[in-house]
Amino acid sequence: MEREGPANLPPNLEWRGEIPGVLRILDQTLLPGRVAYRECRGPEEVSRAILDLAVRGAPAIGLSAAYGAVLIAQHLLKLEVEDFRSRLDRQLTALAAVRPTAVNLGWAVARARRTAGEYGGQGARATATALLRLARTLHREERDTCRALGDAGAELLPRRGAVLTHCNTGYLATGGLGTALAVVYRAHEQGKTIAVYADETRPLWQGLRLTAWELSRFGVPVTVLCDGAAGALLAAGRVDAVIVGADRITRRGDFANKIGTYPLAVLARRHGIPFYVAAPLSTFDPELDDGSAIPIEERDPAEVLSPRGLELAAPQARAWNPAFDLTPADLVTGIITEKGVLTPPLAEAIHSLLPAPPGEGERSMA
Amino acid sequence: MEREGPANLPPNLEWRGEIPGVLRILDQTLLPGRVAYRECRGPEEVSRAILDLAVRGAPAIGLSAAYGAVLIAQHLLKLEVEDFRSRLDRQLTALAAVRPTAVNLGWAVARARRTAGEYGGQGARATATALLRLARTLHREERDTCRALGDAGAELLPRRGAVLTHCNTGYLATGGLGTALAVVYRAHEQGKTIAVYADETRPLWQGLRLTAWELSRFGVPVTVLCDGAAGALLAAGRVDAVIVGADRITRRGDFANKIGTYPLAVLARRHGIPFYVAAPLSTFDPELDDGSAIPIEERDPAEVLSPRGLELAAPQARAWNPAFDLTPADLVTGIITEKGVLTPPLAEAIHSLLPAPPGEGERSMA
Repeated sequence: MEREGPANLPPNLEWRGEIPGVLRILDQTLLPGRVAYRECRGPEEVSRAILDLAVRGAPAIGLSAAYGAVLIAQHLLKLEVEDFRSRLDRQLTALAAVRPTAVNLGWAVARARRTAGEYGGQGARATATALLRLARTLHREERDTCRALGDAGAELLPRRGAVLTHCNTGYLATGGLGTALAVVYRAHEQGKTIAVYADETRPLWQGLRLTAWELSRFGVPVTVLCDGAAGALLAAGRVDAVIVGADRITRRGDFANKIGTYPLAVLARRHGIPFYVAAPLSTFDPELDDGSAIPIEERDPAEVLSPRGLELAAPQARAWNPAFDLTPADLVTGIITEKGVLTPPLAEAIHSLLPAPPGEGERSMA
Repeated sequence: MEREGPANLPPNLEWRGEIPGVLRILDQTLLPGRVAYRECRGPEEVSRAILDLAVRGAPAIGLSAAYGAVLIAQHLLKLEVEDFRSRLDRQLTALAAVRPTAVNLGWAVARARRTAGEYGGQGARATATALLRLARTLHREERDTCRALGDAGAELLPRRGAVLTHCNTGYLATGGLGTALAVVYRAHEQGKTIAVYADETRPLWQGLRLTAWELSRFGVPVTVLCDGAAGALLAAGRVDAVIVGADRITRRGDFANKIGTYPLAVLARRHGIPFYVAAPLSTFDPELDDGSAIPIEERDPAEVLSPRGLELAAPQARAWNPAFDLTPADLVTGIITEKGVLTPPLAEAIHSLLPAPPGEGERSMA
């Protein structure tokens, strides 16, 4: 398979075989200590992997769902056309609902649903084959998308400088080089000297565990800090830009991203530091305008109260554990996409770039 | 011993015996899982307890140093006056340097040094006795200070509301009810219904481990959140005030406090939420005007990279681990002290309240 980046990076998503085949998902909950895969043969295993954050990052979740649609179809090969179509439809709906915030999940399922609509009349096997072709196409397109997005963003960086980022937005989070980290990787490959400051990103430490790991493998120097230390870092003038990813961007440019993103935007504004969002067009939700309409997933309080099983809290303590926060468009310097960097007024820039809204029926079915 | 709060709270600092005696320090690194004490018989053990954060919080560090001065003196009982005085002086200097940021440490050592100056001529035993009297006086005064500060702050809170706080500023951090948490405790005792949101406070989880524990013991409902989630909390309008402690406050009202404080101040300003600092007058440094002159301690990167021994980072990853950050006076709504609430212009309010600056010699010796 065509690969980006150093050869010693294990693939994060890999389809083995044809129909029936196996989706191998790199289990990110075990990184960086262990490189191990979840072998998904049915849709429940994909849903479980998404729910457990074995695979995470909006684009990678989308691709997992595209492959998940193949797994659904190949489990229904023996059914007659009508049964097949209704079971497929029901299970695609369930798959789209596994996590609520990232729009890429619904987007990928909507694409799969369209393909299923085209091929469903030809039976289960033809549909499964078409869904696998779709997933592979999306995967390949995403490699190109990440690279184009990275190139567009790399132009914004100085020849020598430092970037602050949050969570993990690299190859682990996508089907290619990444989003915010693709910008760093492309700048690095072009000979720029870019150091990265990575927020540890509590509660699940995607920055500490994943971003530090993949940047190191790419040969990019990385310094981890606690999420609360970003204010001191930005105040000290150590950073040329903040670049983050996104899980969903609305028509006017409000966006949801990993909890802890919004404070960075507010702090960057105070210190006059550019704040960029890096995301492919598949992360835009053409149906939403106001960010407050984005559903925010709340996760298990145990992620806060007993990090990785450490019993650190008083028995009576409760926790509030939103997985994402909202950043309003007015704090965004630019949105880095595969079609270039969108700058304010964002609503206009987004309007001119977004593909035509999907058909009503398709979207409402997802 | 006179106690504040519920009877089931173990004392955090306790002197047992006279001269020679033992300083018992509640080991906060083991909380909330275990209540255990470090028994300090010599100054090295006190320094070690301060360095390890077995005792932390600016006021409690100050009191530990006051008792530490007694331990120094009682170890030198057999020395002649001149030897005693020079050894005492040298060891007090070392004690004052154990942690750089909290001014209370230097302040307490300066007080001990003044007492030693008055009694030194009468020999080691008389000095040790006088130092113990001083430590007990400071301890008793701090109980009054915390209560007065709490009462002054409680007036700022509504009859029913919620407060966001950071780190631990309660009885564990002081010789009394606390600073920011004293405000909550006094409001609670006056019949107000106050809920507390507590930042977990990475890297050492003082909020998750200590604040949640002591608030629960006091019967105050507490909800812990990751440090990065404070932005979403404030944006959601769930909080009536942010109240934090301080490790050092300058003449114009800039202050250092636990890393992660500064982002809260910036976010509170954006959302029009009052941002209060609660601190006794002993936390003011009359020698500094600009906060950027406050020395900021950087601690072991392992606190970030391997939290509580969990190996979560790639071997190549580095970390930046400042223990404190600076918040400029212009973001402060008020400073809650035992003499009332100071409001802007803070420089004038502080000037009118601060005791006369200590003698040059005394301060420079510390």
